[in-house]
Amino acid sequence: MSGTQSQATASSLQICRIMRPDDANIVGNVHGGTILKMIEEAGCIIGTRHCNTQSGDRCAAQLARVERTDFLYPMFIGEVAHVSAEITYASKHSVEVQVHVMSENILTGATKMTNRAALWYVPFSLKNVDNVTEVPPIKYASPGQEEEGKKRYEAQKMERLETKERNGELLMPVSAPEPYTVGFSQSSLIHLVGPSDCTLHGFVHGGVTMKLMDEVAGIVAARHCKTNIVTASVDAINFHRKIMKGCVVTVSGRATFASNKSMEIEVFVDADPLIEAEKGKYRAVTAFFTYISLDKQGKPLPIPPMKLEGDGEQRRFEDGKMRYLQNKAKRLADKERQQ
Amino acid sequence: MSGTQSQATASSLQICRIMRPDDANIVGNVHGGTILKMIEEAGCIIGTRHCNTQSGDRCAAQLARVERTDFLYPMFIGEVAHVSAEITYASKHSVEVQVHVMSENILTGATKMTNRAALWYVPFSLKNVDNVTEVPPIKYASPGQEEEGKKRYEAQKMERLETKERNGELLMPVSAPEPYTVGFSQSSLIHLVGPSDCTLHGFVHGGVTMKLMDEVAGIVAARHCKTNIVTASVDAINFHRKIMKGCVVTVSGRATFASNKSMEIEVFVDADPLIEAEKGKYRAVTAFFTYISLDKQGKPLPIPPMKLEGDGEQRRFEDGKMRYLQNKAKRLADKERQQ
Amino acid sequence: MSGTQSQATASSLQICRIMRPDDANIVGNVHGGTILKMIEEAGCIIGTRHCNTQSGDRCAAQLARVERTDFLYPMFIGEVAHVSAEITYASKHSVEVQVHVMSENILTGATKMTNRAALWYVPFSLKNVDNVTEVPPIKYASPGQEEEGKKRYEAQKMERLETKERNGELLMPVSAPEPYTVGFSQSSLIHLVGPSDCTLHGFVHGGVTMKLMDEVAGIVAARHCKTNIVTASVDAINFHRKIMKGCVVTVSGRATFASNKSMEIEVFVDADPLIEAEKGKYRAVTAFFTYISLDKQGKPLPIPPMKLEGDGEQRRFEDGKMRYLQNKAKRLADKERQQ
Repeated sequence: MSGTQSQATASSLQICRIMRPDDANIVGNVHGGTILKMIEEAGCIIGTRHCNTQSGDRCAAQLARVERTDFLYPMFIGEVAHVSAEITYASKHSVEVQVHVMSENILTGATKMTNRAALWYVPFSLKNVDNVTEVPPIKYASPGQEEEGKKRYEAQKMERLETKERNGELLMPVSAPEPYTVGFSQSSLIHLVGPSDCTLHGFVHGGVTMKLMDEVAGIVAARHCKTNIVTASVDAINFHRKIMKGCVVTVSGRATFASNKSMEIEVFVDADPLIEAEKGKYRAVTAFFTYISLDKQGKPLPIPPMKLEGDGEQRRFEDGKMRYLQNKAKRLADKERQQ
Repeated sequence: MSGTQSQATASSLQICRIMRPDDANIVGNVHGGTILKMIEEAGCIIGTRHCNTQSGDRCAAQLARVERTDFLYPMFIGEVAHVSAEITYASKHSVEVQVHVMSENILTGATKMTNRAALWYVPFSLKNVDNVTEVPPIKYASPGQEEEGKKRYEAQKMERLETKERNGELLMPVSAPEPYTVGFSQSSLIHLVGPSDCTLHGFVHGGVTMKLMDEVAGIVAARHCKTNIVTASVDAINFHRKIMKGCVVTVSGRATFASNKSMEIEVFVDADPLIEAEKGKYRAVTAFFTYISLDKQGKPLPIPPMKLEGDGEQRRFEDGKMRYLQNKAKRLADKERQQ
Repeated sequence: MSGTQSQATASSLQICRIMRPDDANIVGNVHGGTILKMIEEAGCIIGTRHCNTQSGDRCAAQLARVERTDFLYPMFIGEVAHVSAEITYASKHSVEVQVHVMSENILTGATKMTNRAALWYVPFSLKNVDNVTEVPPIKYASPGQEEEGKKRYEAQKMERLETKERNGELLMPVSAPEPYTVGFSQSSLIHLVGPSDCTLHGFVHGGVTMKLMDEVAGIVAARHCKTNIVTASVDAINFHRKIMKGCVVTVSGRATFASNKSMEIEVFVDADPLIEAEKGKYRAVTAFFTYISLDKQGKPLPIPPMKLEGDGEQRRFEDGKMRYLQNKAKRLADKERQQ
């Protein structure tokens, strides 16, 4: 009996979780991405578990492909998502995992099948991450089942090869900016404001905004320096306009100035009220962040000089230099006063 | 005694938390943004608490300004961050909160002052979010303290006014694309891969990538439709190349096709190994997501037609239409087979 | 002066945080698991700090046991949770941490004591994670205090030995169960342990485990009652075996007993080392959670009677009834003693 039980757990798996406010949009619909992430978590666990059931190299199952997935019914906050995964085919070097997702309203008892998905995993050795390991065979309920699995395997294999070629073509060489220019390191992110970002009254916490700003500025600095960079200071930040729940926030950063020891990045936050679009996009916050670059022992490294292009960049560099010199003078004055 | 106690808690506050892998970069340095967020959480609590200590409208303290903040020492994963906040000045309509951050290594007992910050909050009525309410007075230890606070208040007030004007100018009207064009709704985000995004062996979970893709595609759809949109399906996705810890991931989405009932969005995922830059940026994944638009009762709404510009957009629209018709035919065939 | 200061920080600690939407259910009640996790974070910091105050091996305090914890009042989104922890007893190889939780409504100023808890930690060497290190002594305010601590220490030691044997039974799946049966409401979830769930040394925080346990128990209770349910208490929990990074954790819950006013749910935590499969799956923790059911105004509702099937369920029900009656008697005795 317990043998059956443990075989069952080896080749099938159930995950469930209550859907929380952060899993959904402001209307309460759970994001498709939340469900895809749960599906893949189940697939990764069951795939890794199966590929380690026989002796040999330890390995981790890597997602190679997800078949077309339909979202049949919406899921809502407060419902429980049940994800069941099962290994349904094993080739020499890959496994197919089929997944079903049900939503359960635990108050009314109503359940709905919301998704069916099929994922392909390939096991990679943990000793040498470029080595694909062998997959232990599975038992099929009938020869027909194995046959059908094989057909699905061949079909996806062909499609993967095709898209591999297509992908190569897609990688059009965008007018790649030169290293150390402002264009090379400039970065931006968008963030859909969620419930946990906000105060009870639907306004984004200033701290959430500053965290996003530091994230973008840090990426700009790392792209310029290609080293471990850390925040050294933030200039005064003014929050002129509030950002509301349901906005999309665009946070952009560009290098403005670099001394030998530090670089300054200007960050802009723009808010876009997605649904009440008549309110229009507006600039909510701007700020200057300063970063330093560290080596592996945590010692400061010199900052690569910036390559400036155009009058705007030159002017912003001079402005940054002035801020830099003012701050330096202020620090010295503070030090003397303290002595 | 208990009176003193409650006054003490009213005007000062201590927050502390262990720094986790997700709070830091891959070298273990805690992000400046994590610290700024904790600082602001302390300020928001103490500011809101103080502004509600006298009768009158209930209000929430909104961050108006953060003074220049220096990061004196780095903080590391596993250390405890202690944030102490205190109200140090109150004008009629704003409070100044001063915050100290200490890092504590609980293994060695070593502590360091890592930050000093000053934040200005303005209380807004909860009944009418456009009304600023009055701030209760605080008691100063000495008249000199009040005097100095007033100076800081006047100085920051002037600076806020100045930047308000400067900000207006900054809002250069970017060559704004026309609504319903591809350019209008296209969106992209960057994400610095963190420890929680990865398997034990340092590769990004496929589910994490799909969640980011759905996030960007959802924003494209919402920008086009300006309604509540939900994921209807995802075409097969192939994961040709792994994404490693420490990469910056750029996820971009653009509308490719819209029928009356649904719209298709193409999503690209590019990985950029930030530090091992010699490996170069590469395209890791691409996929097509399909969305539908819903009204407030959850009923489908028609999708606004796309305004196409140029041959590329036209060609991608035709390709999308073919995928749409193929899927429709397949769904019908599946239905018939099941009957 | 500074001596007093540093003693104060060494043996006591305050944590506080605003409760966010994700910390609560859809009605706005903060999950018991969120509070248990904060309590354990405070205990872990103060315990680890104390055990490293004298020279010798560096060590990390691991949660060994949580005494029975009552949830006296509900907490809501937007309130600030204040957690204060203090070391109250030290044996040669363990420390007792007592924790108080207060909720503060920062708009009205109202505060409530919501929880009192006692946790036992054991320090493990960081060089050799199987070695328990010695705990530095603490100073007691009076000899009576030490005496009482010793009694609590002996009592929990005996209980830990007893429960060590209780582990072992597994949940059996039931096919399409009838409402109000144990099979109908029983639930389980699995969780892949990630970096943020763990201490610096790769062991899952006890608070993370308790949060998962409360999540499953809450689903069982909601399935049975079909109403808004809240955690009323948690029986003493013993953490017999550590859970490592890279494990898959399965958390299962089943109803054991229901009175008119509350229901008891037994929760099992099994750890499965995904990759080092030869280590085998093991039972890490078990516990009993008690829930009450509330109507929309927050008033208690009667619990639907359980339909018992088979001898095992009957026996567990009787055992649960005994625990229920014992706790009731203990509460009454405590009340009388206080009058």
